[in-house]
Amino acid sequence: MDEFELIRTFFATQPVCRDDVVLGIGDDAAVLSPPPDEKLVCTTDMMLEDVHFASTTQPSAIGHKALAVNLSDLAAMGARPAWATMTLALTAADPVWLQAFCAGFFELAARFRVQLVGGDLTRGPLAVGMHLTGFVGNEGFLTRDGARPGDDVYVSGFLGDAALGLQAQRGTVTLAGPDHDAVLRRLEFPEPRVELGCALCGMATAAIDISDGLCADLGHIVTSSGVAARLEAERLPLSGVYRRHFGELGWEPALSFGDDYELCFTAAPASRGAIEAVAAARRVTVTRIGTIHEGEGIRISAGGTEFTPRSAGYEHFRA
Amino acid sequence: MDEFELIRTFFATQPVCRDDVVLGIGDDAAVLSPPPDEKLVCTTDMMLEDVHFASTTQPSAIGHKALAVNLSDLAAMGARPAWATMTLALTAADPVWLQAFCAGFFELAARFRVQLVGGDLTRGPLAVGMHLTGFVGNEGFLTRDGARPGDDVYVSGFLGDAALGLQAQRGTVTLAGPDHDAVLRRLEFPEPRVELGCALCGMATAAIDISDGLCADLGHIVTSSGVAARLEAERLPLSGVYRRHFGELGWEPALSFGDDYELCFTAAPASRGAIEAVAAARRVTVTRIGTIHEGEGIRISAGGTEFTPRSAGYEHFRA
Repeated sequence: MDEFELIRTFFATQPVCRDDVVLGIGDDAAVLSPPPDEKLVCTTDMMLEDVHFASTTQPSAIGHKALAVNLSDLAAMGARPAWATMTLALTAADPVWLQAFCAGFFELAARFRVQLVGGDLTRGPLAVGMHLTGFVGNEGFLTRDGARPGDDVYVSGFLGDAALGLQAQRGTVTLAGPDHDAVLRRLEFPEPRVELGCALCGMATAAIDISDGLCADLGHIVTSSGVAARLEAERLPLSGVYRRHFGELGWEPALSFGDDYELCFTAAPASRGAIEAVAAARRVTVTRIGTIHEGEGIRISAGGTEFTPRSAGYEHFRA
Repeated sequence: MDEFELIRTFFATQPVCRDDVVLGIGDDAAVLSPPPDEKLVCTTDMMLEDVHFASTTQPSAIGHKALAVNLSDLAAMGARPAWATMTLALTAADPVWLQAFCAGFFELAARFRVQLVGGDLTRGPLAVGMHLTGFVGNEGFLTRDGARPGDDVYVSGFLGDAALGLQAQRGTVTLAGPDHDAVLRRLEFPEPRVELGCALCGMATAAIDISDGLCADLGHIVTSSGVAARLEAERLPLSGVYRRHFGELGWEPALSFGDDYELCFTAAPASRGAIEAVAAARRVTVTRIGTIHEGEGIRISAGGTEFTPRSAGYEHFRA
């Protein structure tokens, strides 16, 4: 199959067909009708083999995660997702691989009503780039710079399972079968917190998604907001699997690893009831893990003493 | 420098600052205000080292071309460019390389009032992905499927110089110094025909940009439109350098190589005067090279006999 047959076979037929797509895949560019009186929210992320995922990763997980990490960025802005484009470099045109990759991608796209409106397919080392556009209306959007002294610090879901998944994948930790599968799923099929992010607009004072690690990402909130944060390690939401292996893991993976794609956000104490209600309605756990103060940086207490993570989070160009 | 310092140093300061960018580089996503009552036109393209450009290519040319090929797609739709995002994989964070890359990118961005609103910087084999958004208003947009029997076929500029540039770069043809520089510039710093494309809205019946070769790209127009085309090779616009080397080159590079990023478009004969006026006002040459007929495929006459190109144009996954 040539490039154009591949596009027709695997990408031009898809589950979502949006009314606001005037012209989708197949011309020099897509033509789109933005909703009146709304703003657009745009994000882009790239995933490379051996950098963002192991060469043994199943293609459906690569398709899922390429979209999920971009959905997670929109969630952190409180935006409703709409249109995606994809750049895909493949070493070879393998129909079995492409079928599975597309299944992972389009299954998630269907859940969030995302239509793929264009892309670029090329031969090269395996790489998936995504661009995702969403909308925000009068309720506004979430940024990193609005945290104020006195605010609570929250995270959604559980932290550290993706780290444990990577260790299980690499064989540096051995888990029972169901535990192994559960944490590998958390690494490979992260769940973007889109509905929660949208519901937090007007309620949270700042938000970010945890891709590089809680400390690194909350670090962006405190730096952008000109404030400090204090966390209590004992409050960190840890899954049953993580708790069972806490002796080997300690706090570090939950604080510093990232790849969990949970939301970290801040809100005034007056919003506690509303946030609990919003989270319960969306069946997402949210946990208060600390508070915002005047100053700078993040301080973490564990067992009454200060805890300093060894790693400041994932960073591509650290010397 | 870490990832965030690199972004601040090289990407967050830029020449263009648009009023419709509510939130640019620096948060989880950009927030943008689309113009009321217009449609968005979105395109994406990726360039990889050793696939789309040689490892010896100067970084300013990579920066220029990554944006130029996307501008060319918007030109082929008749859209006015506005917002870009970039995914950039680098083997190392080399400030000298990045400075030159950004100079090439932002010089072109400034000319077309394109603001970079976000991106993703990662370590990996050199790859540049771009997503570009533009606008079209009530004058509509250009597609590939509107060519009708009786229409003229046009191209802008000259064809085949980029092919000659690649041969000169590879040393398979030897040119005098100024000729060498001229064709290499055409390969490395293509000029997107944005103003021409916008002016052709409502005048051209179909349009495409020539990235894969005239025959391949005009082939998309005739297939999408359900028509045939006849071209006269003697009418192809060839530069002075190409003409001087015509004996070695023949018609093939001008017909099949691509990478020229000129526009190929069709229009009714009644539009000839208007098209000449539009092109003259924008100081772009446009040349009538053939006509649209009922049927399918492309026939090319050269010296009174039918000419069949050996190559159907560039294609990534040909068996």
